[in-house]
Amino acid sequence: MEKLLNELFERLSELYSLRKFSDLKALLLDIEPADTAYFLEELGENDKVLFFRLLPKQLASDVFVEVSSNTQEYLIKKFSDTELKEIIGDMFLDDAVDIIEEMPSNVVKRILKNTSPEDRATINKLLEYPGGSAGSLMTTEYVSFQSSLTIKEAFDKIRKEGVDKETIYTCYVTDSRKKLIGVVTVKDLLLNSYESKIEDIMETKIVYLNTLEDKEVVAKVFQKYDFLALPVIDKEGCMVGIITVDDAVDVIQEEATEDIHKMAAVTPTDKPYLKQGLFTIFLSRFPWLVLLMLSATFTSLIIGVYEEKLYLITPTLFACIPMIMGTGGNAGSQSAVTITRAIALDEVKFKDIFRVLLKEITVGIILGLGVSILCFLKLMFIDSLYNEVTPLIAFTISLSLFATIVLAKIVGAALPLLAKKIKLDPAVMASPFITTIVDAASLILYCALSLAIL
Amino acid sequence: MEKLLNELFERLSELYSLRKFSDLKALLLDIEPADTAYFLEELGENDKVLFFRLLPKQLASDVFVEVSSNTQEYLIKKFSDTELKEIIGDMFLDDAVDIIEEMPSNVVKRILKNTSPEDRATINKLLEYPGGSAGSLMTTEYVSFQSSLTIKEAFDKIRKEGVDKETIYTCYVTDSRKKLIGVVTVKDLLLNSYESKIEDIMETKIVYLNTLEDKEVVAKVFQKYDFLALPVIDKEGCMVGIITVDDAVDVIQEEATEDIHKMAAVTPTDKPYLKQGLFTIFLSRFPWLVLLMLSATFTSLIIGVYEEKLYLITPTLFACIPMIMGTGGNAGSQSAVTITRAIALDEVKFKDIFRVLLKEITVGIILGLGVSILCFLKLMFIDSLYNEVTPLIAFTISLSLFATIVLAKIVGAALPLLAKKIKLDPAVMASPFITTIVDAASLILYCALSLAIL
Repeated sequence: MEKLLNELFERLSELYSLRKFSDLKALLLDIEPADTAYFLEELGENDKVLFFRLLPKQLASDVFVEVSSNTQEYLIKKFSDTELKEIIGDMFLDDAVDIIEEMPSNVVKRILKNTSPEDRATINKLLEYPGGSAGSLMTTEYVSFQSSLTIKEAFDKIRKEGVDKETIYTCYVTDSRKKLIGVVTVKDLLLNSYESKIEDIMETKIVYLNTLEDKEVVAKVFQKYDFLALPVIDKEGCMVGIITVDDAVDVIQEEATEDIHKMAAVTPTDKPYLKQGLFTIFLSRFPWLVLLMLSATFTSLIIGVYEEKLYLITPTLFACIPMIMGTGGNAGSQSAVTITRAIALDEVKFKDIFRVLLKEITVGIILGLGVSILCFLKLMFIDSLYNEVTPLIAFTISLSLFATIVLAKIVGAALPLLAKKIKLDPAVMASPFITTIVDAASLILYCALSLAIL
Repeated sequence: MEKLLNELFERLSELYSLRKFSDLKALLLDIEPADTAYFLEELGENDKVLFFRLLPKQLASDVFVEVSSNTQEYLIKKFSDTELKEIIGDMFLDDAVDIIEEMPSNVVKRILKNTSPEDRATINKLLEYPGGSAGSLMTTEYVSFQSSLTIKEAFDKIRKEGVDKETIYTCYVTDSRKKLIGVVTVKDLLLNSYESKIEDIMETKIVYLNTLEDKEVVAKVFQKYDFLALPVIDKEGCMVGIITVDDAVDVIQEEATEDIHKMAAVTPTDKPYLKQGLFTIFLSRFPWLVLLMLSATFTSLIIGVYEEKLYLITPTLFACIPMIMGTGGNAGSQSAVTITRAIALDEVKFKDIFRVLLKEITVGIILGLGVSILCFLKLMFIDSLYNEVTPLIAFTISLSLFATIVLAKIVGAALPLLAKKIKLDPAVMASPFITTIVDAASLILYCALSLAIL
């Protein structure tokens, strides 16, 4: 795949630089819009405009929705009103809304000015839904039937209106007050006789989303039930739009990215990395880094208190502090991240907390035994080459390591579940907070054990 | 949604415990198979079998594919051969293969014995593809046409065969040697006249997958192009199956979970957390924890070397080691995880390494300045309450922190990209390895700077 694509891009570059535009246009017809968008993205600004204007009419809008918002903004500024009107007119309304949400207000005004009054009203309505809600993700371009239609009439309606709909494969049956009463797929229509009535074949068991539902829920519902599209219902119970599976796929990726970023103490942003401004990156990382740096005050406080006493026993105790804290941190984030992901995928719920804790404590004890035995051997045979290590010192350090690992597993497993319970974000709890707590606790444990035993 | 579902489950429990089986059956018709599976999963073992046998015939196989593999195994053992034959016969072949892959060999034998000879041959062929390849994910139940068919004939074929196909919305046009020559959607069929020939309306620009392509590629292709199904082609160029978008959604989630686990130094397993055995969990975490514990030998070695000298200057320098190393680790994993995710989403490639490094260094400098100024203030006004802190000591510590943050950003950004280049897994590089490198480097830096300045 990758190789074929690179060959294609080389051929595009060649035709473009030789100005063989008619060959280029013919070739573009054979390329997926997403790939053309990728190629366009790599061109210089002036070339972007020139190249975009070479696109066959029927592809222009498909390619446009696939390029980055920076490029979209640049192109819109270069477009004539006629060009803009065509591009936006050929687009599905949810895509138009996605684009508008990223544009500065003067560009938004120009886009809306060049939209038909009907589309403008719908776009404005969609823009009112909070960002990330089902309402803001949906499109209003779906096929709906009255229940009294026959299959033949339904097919006629699809043939007439279908070309402008985001999907025709799932059609919705609504009553006179726009209440959703049934769903019918094209498969159902095809496998029944022409004379059957929609009301006799429609599915009345309907999975739907509310307009204000968060995109996290949208992702989960699509993953759980294998639908190609889901209807969106407003507060009054009327059907207002649909979300299609291709948009759900994007949402699923965004949600995973968000969780990954939070686990690494980065505030999520929805732009691709290379398009993020320096200031955005700075803001997404600075508060966390400061918070974690400040929380280390506890560890230096603890060390400050025990320092002299430990040093008098043996300096080796100091040399092992980073190892104990590091292993504790790693053991904790193993559990935290595993449990956080399991919560995100609905595999684990708060009611499972005791099962989870029992499992993590058991695993923690086995892991702790294994790791601390190896640590004991390492101390006796490797560290003893350059630090003072007696069997009792090695035992004390290994015992602390064991206790730290078990503790880390408990904290790492419990905190995400507790966070979920009190409606905080488990992903935020995952690594950074747990590390801080485990660090402080394991350090106290280590110092206390050392003083008690040695 | 959640609330409605809970009410439904309560009603199910009630009907089940009152043994009102005919009401229960009627209610089950109105519940999505995925929800019924969730309910069944919570029942005791004997109830699972009893409840499963209450399922309306047309739902049994849909529910069966949704329950966990432990439950599947248990149910199969309780099924009569006739029951097993029916359940497996109603299933799509890719689902049957998914189930078989999780079963012990005696159960596999029983399943295959109760499958039609034709299906058995196909299942055996699918089982030969390596796990996680496109071949192992695909199903062979798709609709194919000859190019000479008219649309009317095509519809007749769909009506005849469609009920057993995993999707009918995308149909494939193959020649006499099974080479894929075109794709046609039901939308195309509906929007053209009955007399048109398939060859005149089919799309010849085809995105496809090879049987041996990894599921990572499957996930990426589905995310990039918004298809409902993709054809899978074997080495000889013949079409052998399709992958549908609902299976791709599962793959996308699995890939994200794998990456998240790797970033937290856990070897990925594909079972849900609560179904994982203790030994599996132990094995997935132990090697990493040992590796990281052993790598801390470097830090204790370094501390061992500088220990006396630092202690003679001021014990405060020791107390701040965890803060420096911790902040360095956090700063590094912020970059590493962000870049790793961007690589996974194809937003960043190796050729961008200089852009990425420039960005990370700039951000690192700004972040480093901000954090170390705050650290200086913290040292002077908070730490000074319990440790010896002169302005020069605070300056030295803050300077080390600044250098550590910049260094951590460079290592954190470069390593995942280098890993990708030499075809290692960037996610594995993400947190644990980078932390180890940054820990050792920042410690040397800190000790050297302290000795030089103080």
